[in-house]
Amino acid sequence: MSESIKRVVLAYSGGLDTSVILKWLQVTYGCEVVTFTADLGQGEELEPARAKAELMGIKPEHIFIDDLREEFVRDFVFPMMRANARYEGDYLLGTSIARPLISKRLVEIAKETGADAVAHGATGKGNDQVRFELSCYALNPDIKVIAPWREWALTSRTALIDFAEKNQIPVPKDKRGESPFSTDANLLHTSSEGKVLEDPWEETPDYVYSRTVNPEDAPDAPEYITIDFEKGDGVALNGQAMSPATLLAALNDLGRKHGIGRLDLVENRFVGMKSRGMYETPGGEIYARAHRGIESITLDRGAAHLKDELMPKYAELIYNGFWFAPEREMLQAAIDHSQAKVTGTVRVKLYKGSANVVGRKSPHSLYSERHVTFEDDAGAYDQKDAAGFIKLNALRLKLLARRDR
Amino acid sequence: MSESIKRVVLAYSGGLDTSVILKWLQVTYGCEVVTFTADLGQGEELEPARAKAELMGIKPEHIFIDDLREEFVRDFVFPMMRANARYEGDYLLGTSIARPLISKRLVEIAKETGADAVAHGATGKGNDQVRFELSCYALNPDIKVIAPWREWALTSRTALIDFAEKNQIPVPKDKRGESPFSTDANLLHTSSEGKVLEDPWEETPDYVYSRTVNPEDAPDAPEYITIDFEKGDGVALNGQAMSPATLLAALNDLGRKHGIGRLDLVENRFVGMKSRGMYETPGGEIYARAHRGIESITLDRGAAHLKDELMPKYAELIYNGFWFAPEREMLQAAIDHSQAKVTGTVRVKLYKGSANVVGRKSPHSLYSERHVTFEDDAGAYDQKDAAGFIKLNALRLKLLARRDR
Amino acid sequence: MSESIKRVVLAYSGGLDTSVILKWLQVTYGCEVVTFTADLGQGEELEPARAKAELMGIKPEHIFIDDLREEFVRDFVFPMMRANARYEGDYLLGTSIARPLISKRLVEIAKETGADAVAHGATGKGNDQVRFELSCYALNPDIKVIAPWREWALTSRTALIDFAEKNQIPVPKDKRGESPFSTDANLLHTSSEGKVLEDPWEETPDYVYSRTVNPEDAPDAPEYITIDFEKGDGVALNGQAMSPATLLAALNDLGRKHGIGRLDLVENRFVGMKSRGMYETPGGEIYARAHRGIESITLDRGAAHLKDELMPKYAELIYNGFWFAPEREMLQAAIDHSQAKVTGTVRVKLYKGSANVVGRKSPHSLYSERHVTFEDDAGAYDQKDAAGFIKLNALRLKLLARRDR
Amino acid sequence: MSESIKRVVLAYSGGLDTSVILKWLQVTYGCEVVTFTADLGQGEELEPARAKAELMGIKPEHIFIDDLREEFVRDFVFPMMRANARYEGDYLLGTSIARPLISKRLVEIAKETGADAVAHGATGKGNDQVRFELSCYALNPDIKVIAPWREWALTSRTALIDFAEKNQIPVPKDKRGESPFSTDANLLHTSSEGKVLEDPWEETPDYVYSRTVNPEDAPDAPEYITIDFEKGDGVALNGQAMSPATLLAALNDLGRKHGIGRLDLVENRFVGMKSRGMYETPGGEIYARAHRGIESITLDRGAAHLKDELMPKYAELIYNGFWFAPEREMLQAAIDHSQAKVTGTVRVKLYKGSANVVGRKSPHSLYSERHVTFEDDAGAYDQKDAAGFIKLNALRLKLLARRDR
Repeated sequence: MSESIKRVVLAYSGGLDTSVILKWLQVTYGCEVVTFTADLGQGEELEPARAKAELMGIKPEHIFIDDLREEFVRDFVFPMMRANARYEGDYLLGTSIARPLISKRLVEIAKETGADAVAHGATGKGNDQVRFELSCYALNPDIKVIAPWREWALTSRTALIDFAEKNQIPVPKDKRGESPFSTDANLLHTSSEGKVLEDPWEETPDYVYSRTVNPEDAPDAPEYITIDFEKGDGVALNGQAMSPATLLAALNDLGRKHGIGRLDLVENRFVGMKSRGMYETPGGEIYARAHRGIESITLDRGAAHLKDELMPKYAELIYNGFWFAPEREMLQAAIDHSQAKVTGTVRVKLYKGSANVVGRKSPHSLYSERHVTFEDDAGAYDQKDAAGFIKLNALRLKLLARRDR
Repeated sequence: MSESIKRVVLAYSGGLDTSVILKWLQVTYGCEVVTFTADLGQGEELEPARAKAELMGIKPEHIFIDDLREEFVRDFVFPMMRANARYEGDYLLGTSIARPLISKRLVEIAKETGADAVAHGATGKGNDQVRFELSCYALNPDIKVIAPWREWALTSRTALIDFAEKNQIPVPKDKRGESPFSTDANLLHTSSEGKVLEDPWEETPDYVYSRTVNPEDAPDAPEYITIDFEKGDGVALNGQAMSPATLLAALNDLGRKHGIGRLDLVENRFVGMKSRGMYETPGGEIYARAHRGIESITLDRGAAHLKDELMPKYAELIYNGFWFAPEREMLQAAIDHSQAKVTGTVRVKLYKGSANVVGRKSPHSLYSERHVTFEDDAGAYDQKDAAGFIKLNALRLKLLARRDR
Repeated sequence: MSESIKRVVLAYSGGLDTSVILKWLQVTYGCEVVTFTADLGQGEELEPARAKAELMGIKPEHIFIDDLREEFVRDFVFPMMRANARYEGDYLLGTSIARPLISKRLVEIAKETGADAVAHGATGKGNDQVRFELSCYALNPDIKVIAPWREWALTSRTALIDFAEKNQIPVPKDKRGESPFSTDANLLHTSSEGKVLEDPWEETPDYVYSRTVNPEDAPDAPEYITIDFEKGDGVALNGQAMSPATLLAALNDLGRKHGIGRLDLVENRFVGMKSRGMYETPGGEIYARAHRGIESITLDRGAAHLKDELMPKYAELIYNGFWFAPEREMLQAAIDHSQAKVTGTVRVKLYKGSANVVGRKSPHSLYSERHVTFEDDAGAYDQKDAAGFIKLNALRLKLLARRDR
Repeated sequence: MSESIKRVVLAYSGGLDTSVILKWLQVTYGCEVVTFTADLGQGEELEPARAKAELMGIKPEHIFIDDLREEFVRDFVFPMMRANARYEGDYLLGTSIARPLISKRLVEIAKETGADAVAHGATGKGNDQVRFELSCYALNPDIKVIAPWREWALTSRTALIDFAEKNQIPVPKDKRGESPFSTDANLLHTSSEGKVLEDPWEETPDYVYSRTVNPEDAPDAPEYITIDFEKGDGVALNGQAMSPATLLAALNDLGRKHGIGRLDLVENRFVGMKSRGMYETPGGEIYARAHRGIESITLDRGAAHLKDELMPKYAELIYNGFWFAPEREMLQAAIDHSQAKVTGTVRVKLYKGSANVVGRKSPHSLYSERHVTFEDDAGAYDQKDAAGFIKLNALRLKLLARRDR
């Protein structure tokens, strides 16, 4: 806290917590605050954030409100989806993938406004602090990063609200008590954790979900959709061309309706503890399954298996905050190389919580009915070749068996 | 075909195809045939196989009918499940994992009966020939393996039926025409492929499914179950202790009822082509999800991530037929080492095609509410430690950024 | 042999064996033969091959003699060296890396001359047949590949020489008896195997070596050299700019003089057996060590460790003949991405069989004396950060230890 | 520093630095100090440490001097060598592998003496602090670890010596000035870093080396030795059975004489910076090469390649201090499983800095002259099998090529 800070760019949501941070930065560091509020598709109005920032004395030219939805999906979500990334087998990394983009803008705005620091509202126990800070340092090694939750004395809800009241920050009625859980949202997902979710044996109460209907309340009839891919990225829904963010938004609507993409997970945080989270990734879940579907007929086995082997590390890098690290970029180069012919159409059935691929076709399909058929294949494949194939694959096992008997 | 064979052990189902093979072996090699029919939980009566074998002149002491269900689940399915193995992201390897056990018994029976060869009914285009033969050679490097489908001239259905009729093999009425698809079944799964499934764009017709109800016809109310694990293996359902095979059978009943475990996949065969398969793994799907659930609170992050990184290779080895290869055994040693404390109870919700973990508890849980809580943690975790953690993780990225700007 | 072949491109060295193959192709297939002789730096005159081909009735326009040395080093050896590839820990892949280029030219010449087949002189026990054929099929899936050693009846040296004499092929005196070992050579290395090398307990006789002096006979004084790298590739020796092939040739001279790059190895062939080989890679060994040296100061840890993890698979792919496979290309994309700043100078000490890096410098060095110094670092690094770093890295281990005590 | 400490076990060498630490702990924490001095083969007398400790008021029953040489080699060095571990391609991990054992004894002695803390003399910039502390916490999650170099104000040599003099700690004459570099030694290696080594372009001065003669001064005649292995571990030198530590010591003598095992490396520390180190691992280098040699004829390809793929991660874990982490143990389980038949004899030629395997034999050899021979193999291998092997390996590449042309 002793460092001298001249001007700081704050990732500002307009909510109570980041408003308290804003004031605390002014009070503690005596520095000028620049606010940055991003529309990542979290579904909240952003203009109120401007009004609040102005109320707290932020100069109009120091209030940044950006619609990053297309950039988010095009440059972060889609590249990640090309890798079929799932952390610990399941988690689609909805929070993790948003942090690098926010950090990128924080650093850019710092440069534009001549700020020497950035600040974020992530706590000292979570992964987000790591993701924000690693990204910021990778993009500007001289930037200072302020993490108020690790620094200040406002360690209880009461202290925080006291500070707000003393500083004329309006406290919404429903924020006076403890929130029963904590959330993060963007176009890809909503995550919930804490409080009522802290006992991993207890089922998540239904009121925690905000992005999907309960599968039991979803339509009784399945719905079929098609997604078109070009070079590994989604480009159309049901034949209608869409931009990345538009496509994901449309899939979110479909996923919400059919109760798709809920995930109750105990995961391992980078900071060393386990946490239990509830994720809703309605459109992402559909998209991820469709992407695997189109790959299944357009990717060669060697490419597909290499991707599967690299994926856990790739997902871990994103989860841990290493988006802007050279090893993530190297893996991305390998993955992107594989996607040149991942073009075609996937048909997905949506029904009460499930999104299942039921058909796939492509002008670049590697699936050959001629080869696989049980019928006469007109010489495409000589079954006798299999004998030699097996013999040579078995040779080392035979030599072993002879030695070891 | 020119090799001299004295006695051959045939993997014999009692069906038309293996009956034709039986006769063809007698005719072609002039050798004695020993039949081996395994109960792997495929759900067919096996005594008719004995009667048919006797009819075709097999000596009673050369007819082997074994109930391998417990061995199958205990020594093959469960060890594989400890690895969370899924081939190409999804396939639970239901066919692949049965082949090593059948091969093991073929080789054992060959030893008991003094046979110098074994024979199987797998075709020359598929993976099963590879799995059978690699396993047999690994267990007995001197055994001869006869694969009639790669050798004989019965390349059309008509030729096969002609051969059967000329040799007094009864041809069931429904086997005269072409089957609309081909299946394999055991306690873990039923697979279907070929014919009506050969166009990967066409949805699988409902009549292909035999092990699960259509999710749309499943009960409208969810059902909750618990599975208890000890050291990585399932030991009880809803609190009732069960043997491995009994547990899997009971989960199959539940999965069937709720339409769980259907998978429509285009996969890459080891022999080089893509094929489209339909898999039903009702109990296996529930079990696999529950196993990941119990691991999520009992496995350390380092162990869990290493398992995730090793899994694709492990699954590929099983798919390709390398169960009895040293590298599979090495991976198994690593995986089994990780399971010592994978003990506890998982609660799973079954509903219209989905099996989702909703709770997990364990006497060996590594989940620490004290550490993760948003509430006061009584000093369990010092948030200031995170600053140093991030700084040192960022150091190399900063040095890079300084160099590259 | 029953296939009808119109015209075949033969990889032709001009030696006895490929001359016999040339004739055998003419006799057996009654087809026209196109000869292709490549200068890969093996150190033999190529014009005699032209004369011999003409003598055997090959049309002048069907005799191809290409100097591929620069392409070989630039497009094959250097990209492989970027990966620090060593098969089974040691082998620098000198034979493996030449096969794809020869195959590429075979297929190109087949296209130019309207040939429908290619032929090579590799035996049925080795890796080279696999490497040639996989590369050819990957570049032209319709090409026919003829491998005489797998087809013909000339299974003994006597039979081969009889065939030669019957067909007026001159047999050099020293080729009448069995050669005491078999060799392959190109600008990167010479390999020797077979006969006198077949007992892996016996030391390689000194007469087997052809590319390096015995270290015991090398100069008694060490020699220091520098190699300059740009973006991962060598560009100068002792400050003098050189083309790829020129640089490698110059390093070969140095390596020969100092007895560097001998390797006696028992390796695992792709076809399933172990073989014992003697490799001499004088310039390659120096280059490989220098490349690691320049990477050590210019590559970030994340990039370097990822490269180390990917290397064994990359080397295996090249060894097994999968240069033109998508997974090799994906790995190459990742590796190449890492080399953008691998620029600088390495100083290497050559002495009696050893090439050791003794200095490295770069305009893009990531080595920071300021950070690493035992002296006062002027605040570059705060040692207190290490406490938090360790605490959070230890957290999961502590939680484990608490559980397991 | 504010924590209350009752009794602390100090890793005590008897040298100036740890003597200052001893006193500083007494002064700063007012606690009782227990000293632990380990004989890891560093080649120093340990009894002077006892005398110094007594002089500084340590109770005799609180002075622990242990000969850990056999345990070190048997339980740490040899298991690591089974993995062929080399960090960043070269470093044999000589310092890294000693830290877990020292930590284990620190924690054990703390238990025996009722101490609540341990202390070490590693600085805040290096890896050793991490290795000590991760190991200690993994073995006793409640232990407190004191790292004086991160805490105290003695940040210059002068301050340290002032403190010593004020506290009657004898300061050897040669320790008054700055040491020109810093070292660590044990039976496996000696490492040197810092000061004169800090410029990675400058060749290491000869006076830095202490464990090996300069290769230029080594004998002019090569020396041949044999090492016998049983189940992956060395058991005899030149046919004479030896305990692990005795064997390594004897190899050290040989390596010293022939100038073997010098390594000049710029490496990536876990704490995020690069450092330049000079390592001498005379016996370890010979042993490591011999181990690969015996594996080359006794390990199956599948096992060998899996080991190569796992090695970089395994080495990184040891380097980073995660010896007592579950993922290291899992990898060890896999590696140890592979060593059951790694038994036999390796012949190594030692000459002026090089240790090269020139022969290997084993009762469990998988090398089959019958298979590999260029001579008639009496039917051991059917070359025609290779055709089918290649065809099926090529199939996916052909399908790709057809699609992409």
